[in-house]
Amino acid sequence: MSFTPASTGQPVRAVLFDVFGTVVDWRTGVAAAVRRFGGEQGLDLDAGAFADAWRSRYGPGMRRVTAGERPFVPLDVLHRENLDGVLADLGLDPGRFGPAALDELNRAWHFLPPWPDSVPGIAALKRDYIVGPLSNGNTSLLLDMAKAGGLPWDVILGSDVSRAYKPAREAYLRPAAMLGLEPGDVMLAAAHEADLAAAREAGLAAAFIARPLEQGPGIPGAGVATQSWDLSVSSITELADLM
Amino acid sequence: MSFTPASTGQPVRAVLFDVFGTVVDWRTGVAAAVRRFGGEQGLDLDAGAFADAWRSRYGPGMRRVTAGERPFVPLDVLHRENLDGVLADLGLDPGRFGPAALDELNRAWHFLPPWPDSVPGIAALKRDYIVGPLSNGNTSLLLDMAKAGGLPWDVILGSDVSRAYKPAREAYLRPAAMLGLEPGDVMLAAAHEADLAAAREAGLAAAFIARPLEQGPGIPGAGVATQSWDLSVSSITELADLM
Repeated sequence: MSFTPASTGQPVRAVLFDVFGTVVDWRTGVAAAVRRFGGEQGLDLDAGAFADAWRSRYGPGMRRVTAGERPFVPLDVLHRENLDGVLADLGLDPGRFGPAALDELNRAWHFLPPWPDSVPGIAALKRDYIVGPLSNGNTSLLLDMAKAGGLPWDVILGSDVSRAYKPAREAYLRPAAMLGLEPGDVMLAAAHEADLAAAREAGLAAAFIARPLEQGPGIPGAGVATQSWDLSVSSITELADLM
Repeated sequence: MSFTPASTGQPVRAVLFDVFGTVVDWRTGVAAAVRRFGGEQGLDLDAGAFADAWRSRYGPGMRRVTAGERPFVPLDVLHRENLDGVLADLGLDPGRFGPAALDELNRAWHFLPPWPDSVPGIAALKRDYIVGPLSNGNTSLLLDMAKAGGLPWDVILGSDVSRAYKPAREAYLRPAAMLGLEPGDVMLAAAHEADLAAAREAGLAAAFIARPLEQGPGIPGAGVATQSWDLSVSSITELADLM
């Protein structure tokens, strides 16, 4: 099988995926780890709100790197700094917890559960295409996640390989080059339109995957595309069927 | 299952493999491509001798990079330069062939056949360990090889990620660090004792895999280890059984 998107006019050779939200359910996974942490520490935490607060610091932390305000650091480091910020916002001094307990909580981002269609969808695409993550996660995070969740990637090149965070142009171009591909050989599949727009700007094809539950249930407009993309689907298995 | 080598005294978490000769049969694969090339070009080439001559330029080409005499270039580039050298040694001006034909021949290194035990052995190890190549090949070469041969790697970090060639110390340490591992968490499996010695020097565990046919049949002493290693086996399936 071969699929040629309208935007690039050339056959796709690799389908690379945004991961947090698109392939895995970060909110459920992080909230479960927060619940465990709260139990161990004797704290009454709103696990979903904690996960949301943690995730809300994700973009701003990376933007300082992308803007050149600080050198590249792996996402594990940013997640760990952001965790201190979330705790402080809740009036909890991070210093009252052992660093091992906070490092352990931080590793929740390595072990997020795939959406139910992710493993079969990626496995189906793997028969005809190169499949891999194109994520802001670092390689060891993405590897742990793949081993634990059974994600059958062909290759894992984390943001610590490209040393760039999406939506910086290099974050899309460097992985393509390392795979021996032109930008137009690659399709990004993602649940976030800003990510898809930056990929398209860099010359990649772009497929929207609706994930209406990414931010939890009952969010108005969640999972609805506002623009037209090469493909727009509600699951990775549907993406595989169309390609 | 968990295996703790004597040399490191800590459990192995990742088994990383030398590729050319250890996982794949470069001589058979390259000779087949040379035979095709000779047929297309109307040349009477000794395909095995051509493969040996090409391979013999591999070490010297990389050593110029390792010695700092030239900046890092991917192995694809070195293979292509070495191909010109082999042709010239045969009295064949590389300029008489189209660059596309030579690039195609150069891609033989991307599509080398696995030894019969490689795929089942790596698949068995994958259940308990992280598995990946630790090769001087570039990422796109290793990816093409894995897709074509069905090598079920968890992760592929080519020498273009570490930007170092074995036996330089960084070629062993940088991949371990990117996987979130200490050197002692990693075991190198290789058919070449110089590679194993450098890995051990860098703090990795080391397993010898005998590949007596790597250089073709009838080579005296081929596939015999001269030193003691953490494990010494005759196939990757045997390695998996022992670990």
